[in-house]
Amino acid sequence: MGKLVIVGTVAFDAIETPFGKTDKILGGAATFIGLSASHFNVDAAAVSVVGGDFPQEYLDLLSNKNIDISGIEIVKEGKTFFWSGRYHNDMNSRDTLVTELNTLADFNPVVPQDYRNAEVVMLGNLHPIVQLSVLEQMEEKPKLVILDTMNFWMDCALDDLHKVINKIDVITINDEEARQLTGEYSLLVAARKIHEMGPKYVVIKKGEHGALLFNNDNVFYAPALPLEEVFDPTGAGDTFAGGFAGYIAKTGDTSFENMKNAVIYGSTLASFCVEKFGTERMQNLTEGEVHKRLLQFKQLTQFEIELA
Amino acid sequence: MGKLVIVGTVAFDAIETPFGKTDKILGGAATFIGLSASHFNVDAAAVSVVGGDFPQEYLDLLSNKNIDISGIEIVKEGKTFFWSGRYHNDMNSRDTLVTELNTLADFNPVVPQDYRNAEVVMLGNLHPIVQLSVLEQMEEKPKLVILDTMNFWMDCALDDLHKVINKIDVITINDEEARQLTGEYSLLVAARKIHEMGPKYVVIKKGEHGALLFNNDNVFYAPALPLEEVFDPTGAGDTFAGGFAGYIAKTGDTSFENMKNAVIYGSTLASFCVEKFGTERMQNLTEGEVHKRLLQFKQLTQFEIELA
Repeated sequence: MGKLVIVGTVAFDAIETPFGKTDKILGGAATFIGLSASHFNVDAAAVSVVGGDFPQEYLDLLSNKNIDISGIEIVKEGKTFFWSGRYHNDMNSRDTLVTELNTLADFNPVVPQDYRNAEVVMLGNLHPIVQLSVLEQMEEKPKLVILDTMNFWMDCALDDLHKVINKIDVITINDEEARQLTGEYSLLVAARKIHEMGPKYVVIKKGEHGALLFNNDNVFYAPALPLEEVFDPTGAGDTFAGGFAGYIAKTGDTSFENMKNAVIYGSTLASFCVEKFGTERMQNLTEGEVHKRLLQFKQLTQFEIELA
Repeated sequence: MGKLVIVGTVAFDAIETPFGKTDKILGGAATFIGLSASHFNVDAAAVSVVGGDFPQEYLDLLSNKNIDISGIEIVKEGKTFFWSGRYHNDMNSRDTLVTELNTLADFNPVVPQDYRNAEVVMLGNLHPIVQLSVLEQMEEKPKLVILDTMNFWMDCALDDLHKVINKIDVITINDEEARQLTGEYSLLVAARKIHEMGPKYVVIKKGEHGALLFNNDNVFYAPALPLEEVFDPTGAGDTFAGGFAGYIAKTGDTSFENMKNAVIYGSTLASFCVEKFGTERMQNLTEGEVHKRLLQFKQLTQFEIELA
């Protein structure tokens, strides 16, 4: 069983969708990644920071999923990172209403000693300098480093972003961000340009249209499961990344063929995440439900054409 | 070998894309459908109308692909249907610059006697009344009737459109049109509503995001091959439909499992269509090229997760 280090926000989210709104609920990239990766029974540790206002029950929730939380710093006198957003009617776009960095503004991640030899590192969306500082703490080169990022850092910290992109193995990025990062409309050409920036593997997330995995000339396309209703997309990308990272950590196999499976697991887990507000659906997801949906994914995508 | 009746426009197109522009070139739904279906060596007949200005070489081109053209009426004193459009930079949207109906305005399709017992009928995009009149000429109920349509008929002939939709087996429609026809954003719910209108099978085309095949609770998702460059999307939807119809006519098998393969063949053929202006790429496409790209499609989509 491989060790997995997860770095990212542990946060409060307040969400408005056409279906309703929430008060401050549990959110954050490391939270969604951790809940998703926990389905693979890997030895995972979350590295993050929260304030004194963060409820013990949320920390217990992560611990109960066997996520080591010794790397989550609690700044007693500080407040927890807070994000609030409102989704538009098509659920594909949203407005940020509030971003309060709070304790995140001075976050210096510390990887617990026991996890500095982890095989897999999942760098959730954060300032690229913070992501870099985690890599520098690793005592040996991890087998696989996965990075998630977003357009915000392309706008305001592009040089730092390029530094961290150059040091990682897999980048997960959405389609519009891949286009922004490379100036290329074709995702095939964009992926090629991102390869040149460092990452051997490029995962482009297309939301309801699925995800693409590139490794030079190899391409794999996992569609998203068509859903009756997307209730709340918050955390879907992180849940995808958590499933991907968890599956790789569990199997220890970084071949392209096995990464295809990691993408399928990521997509499967993300398809649950969007069914309820925040982490609600992920908190109580059973192995049986995941198994059943994987079968649906096979039916959705597999066909039998005999070719010589 | 099954017989296939193809109804649709045979036309002149003039196309502008960011890569260049054409004079009047060969176009039309029946043309693209026919060229695509011709890859399956089925006994196909095109039913259409052109004017005296239509070059014999274009008719010969269809004949040389073993498409029976006795159902293409030539109105000597009339002019051929002409469409001109300009694609935007993203190639996903376009403006129509010119639509001259010409001989199409009074088109009364006549299915050649030899083809009134065809197993498969492909109704390309036309006025729903014209599509209906073709069905009425069939001497026995075809094994499968496939209909393509567009938003234009939803805007100006919705009642007639519903009449023909009620009489067919498979509808191919793009995602925005499926939403317009049903008032539902979720494609899963939209497909269910279209089932209720008549068609047992619903194919929703999502352009660069692939195509979905629905049969009540069964769903299949064929992604589109990621392309370096989309040179000209004109005719891609018709080429998809032609591949779908041709494969069904060849195999004579209308099971859901076989329709999955029909969708894969349709997607494969459409991926060639967009590589050059108009029909240029389809005119010279070889079996070897199709075979190679089908292998690419398998690599793109197939994975091996062992599930009980």
